[in-house]
Amino acid sequence: MIIYFRTMRTKDDIKQEALFEATVKLVNEIGFATSSVSKIAKEANISPATIYVYYKNKEDLLVTTYLEIKKQMGKSATEDFDDSLPIRDILRQVWFKMFDYIGKHPDYFQYCEQFSNSPYQSLVDKREIEKHFDPLIHVVIRGIEQKIIKNVNFDILTVFIFHPIVALSNSRICQDFELNDGNIETAFTMAWDAIRL
Amino acid sequence: MIIYFRTMRTKDDIKQEALFEATVKLVNEIGFATSSVSKIAKEANISPATIYVYYKNKEDLLVTTYLEIKKQMGKSATEDFDDSLPIRDILRQVWFKMFDYIGKHPDYFQYCEQFSNSPYQSLVDKREIEKHFDPLIHVVIRGIEQKIIKNVNFDILTVFIFHPIVALSNSRICQDFELNDGNIETAFTMAWDAIRL
Repeated sequence: MIIYFRTMRTKDDIKQEALFEATVKLVNEIGFATSSVSKIAKEANISPATIYVYYKNKEDLLVTTYLEIKKQMGKSATEDFDDSLPIRDILRQVWFKMFDYIGKHPDYFQYCEQFSNSPYQSLVDKREIEKHFDPLIHVVIRGIEQKIIKNVNFDILTVFIFHPIVALSNSRICQDFELNDGNIETAFTMAWDAIRL
Repeated sequence: MIIYFRTMRTKDDIKQEALFEATVKLVNEIGFATSSVSKIAKEANISPATIYVYYKNKEDLLVTTYLEIKKQMGKSATEDFDDSLPIRDILRQVWFKMFDYIGKHPDYFQYCEQFSNSPYQSLVDKREIEKHFDPLIHVVIRGIEQKIIKNVNFDILTVFIFHPIVALSNSRICQDFELNDGNIETAFTMAWDAIRL
C-alpha cells in the first residue's frame, strides 16, 4: 500500500494511510452526509486537529481520497502498457487489469461509486482524473485516426468501452452472474463490437 | 400527472401526489440521509401523521417513490409497443422513448440514480422493477432465440443495451455533449452492434 503514497512523502505516511482507509471504511458504512471529520478521526485513531494539518476540511479529505483511488486505478490499468500491440489487445488488457484492481479493492470501488453519485463529484475537475488514464485515451484517439474505432463523440465511446467495466462490477446492477474471465472476455468482445468500425 | 396514480384511487390522490413530488424534490436537494419524514411532510404541506396513513416509515416512502418512477418509466418505454416490428426497430423506439421520458423528468431520473446507489436499493426486489419492462425483456429473449442477439448472460446484455441510456443521461458522466436525436441514434447503433450476432 505504502507505494501509492510515495508522492506524499513529506507528510506523515502512516497517518495519511490510516486516514485514507478510515475515510473509505466510514463512508462505505454510513454514507457521505453522516461521515464527519471527527468520526473519521476516531476511526483512524488520529486527533481531529491532526486531520486539519493535512486537509483543509471534510470536502478536501473526501475529494483527495477519491482522486487517490482514481490515480491508483489509472496506474493499475496502464501498467505494462505496450503501445506496439494491436489496439484491441491493448484495450482487452486494460479491461482485465481494471477488473483485477476492482476485485482486489471492492471497498475503494464502492467509495468511488458513491462519490460519483454524490454532490461532491462537482468539486472534481474531470481533467484531474483523465490525466491518470492518458495513455488509454491516446490509444482510442489513434484507433479513430486509423479508422479502427468509430469516429464519434468521446463521451459516447467512453460509455461503451469503459463504463461497462463499472456497470459489470456493480453488484446492484449485475446480481446474477459471477465475474469470471469468461464473462469478462464476453463483455469485452461486446464493448469492442460497439466501438469498432 | 394524476393518471399515474390511477391504481391508488382509494387513497387521497392529491396528498399522495404532493408527497411524491416533495420526496423527489427534497432527496434531490439534500440527499437520502438527511431527508426525514417531518421535512418531507413540511415540503408537501401535509402533517407528518398523515404520511403514516399512507406509508409505514421513511424507507417505505422512499422505496415506493422509486418504484412509482420505475413504473412510469416502464410504461413510457413500452408505449405503442409493436411486437410485429423488427427487433432492432423495437429497441430503437424504446431508446427514444426512454430519453424522451428522462428529458421530461430530469428530477425523477436524478432521484432514481441516487436511490440506485444508496443502501435503500437493497430493499427493492429486482423482479418488482423488471415486471414493468417485461415486453422488452421478451423481445430480447426472442432475439436470442432467433439468433439475432448474442446468447450471453442477460445481465451482460443489459449493460450494453439498456445501461448506456442511463450513462448517457447522467450529466456527470457525459458533460461534453448535447443529447440530440443524432447522438441518440449514434449511441443506439453502437449498443445494437454490441448485442447483435
